[in-house]
Amino acid sequence: MKNLNLSSLKKLEIILEGEHMEFATDLLDRAGVKGYTIVNQLSGKGSHGFYEGHVMFNEDDVLVMIITAVSESLVEPILEGFTPFFNQHSGVIFISDIQVSRLVKFAD
Amino acid sequence: MKNLNLSSLKKLEIILEGEHMEFATDLLDRAGVKGYTIVNQLSGKGSHGFYEGHVMFNEDDVLVMIITAVSESLVEPILEGFTPFFNQHSGVIFISDIQVSRLVKFAD
Amino acid sequence: MKNLNLSSLKKLEIILEGEHMEFATDLLDRAGVKGYTIVNQLSGKGSHGFYEGHVMFNEDDVLVMIITAVSESLVEPILEGFTPFFNQHSGVIFISDIQVSRLVKFAD
Repeated sequence: MKNLNLSSLKKLEIILEGEHMEFATDLLDRAGVKGYTIVNQLSGKGSHGFYEGHVMFNEDDVLVMIITAVSESLVEPILEGFTPFFNQHSGVIFISDIQVSRLVKFAD
Repeated sequence: MKNLNLSSLKKLEIILEGEHMEFATDLLDRAGVKGYTIVNQLSGKGSHGFYEGHVMFNEDDVLVMIITAVSESLVEPILEGFTPFFNQHSGVIFISDIQVSRLVKFAD
Repeated sequence: MKNLNLSSLKKLEIILEGEHMEFATDLLDRAGVKGYTIVNQLSGKGSHGFYEGHVMFNEDDVLVMIITAVSESLVEPILEGFTPFFNQHSGVIFISDIQVSRLVKFAD
């Protein structure tokens, strides 16, 4: 794609209970993330706890998904920042490769 | 990312009419999927039928997207399970590569 | 996955202010995109302008995300079509690799 100036970034999709959204966005802000998009009022079924996965939950419109794109160097500190939280709360972070058109807004 | 324990999984994004959501989540449950997240009240434009794509629809807030992460071995049985359904109903399944932090909840 | 007939496509996730949704779907229609799904009432934080990224916004339930799957050949013309728009308005396009089961509806 010769005329495009695409940057390879990592997309993070952070799914957690809506009551903890501000914890998550504060963590992203402190990590230097410049922008994110929030999908509200998700429902879901899953397990409680990031590592243990024992207690099942079945939640109705209480989850949110925070979508953001970061440079690869930010993935590790962000995941480390979330680890203690997800040891105690429901949720997950999906990491995937994306490209975006040249964007100052996602520089870190 | 030396300190992280990331697992490679397949993300499935299943978009279909909300009235058929329980069919889809039942199929996922039977396939051994441990968790999923549902985005409600999507709108969309597309074609009717998974393989034929003839009849156009234009739907307002009646679609849902079910997001789940599964091991690669589950992709084929899940897609085969959905094939008869999508031969008759609108919708699509997107499959992509993701990584997640170590999670018992998505083991199958 | 021997029995599946998967096609490799590019997923576009176009996030922009809801008031400009029709501009975006018209552009996709003219580019030959056959279907898309719209997630409404997103909130977000980001920067104004595709290339400049200076003015921060903090928007509450005014963003939409348009999700579509296109052949690789359509990515460049679609991004070029959006460039003048994103030079003036908030938003972003994420591009990622996906597979879909054989679908006439996403042929272009």
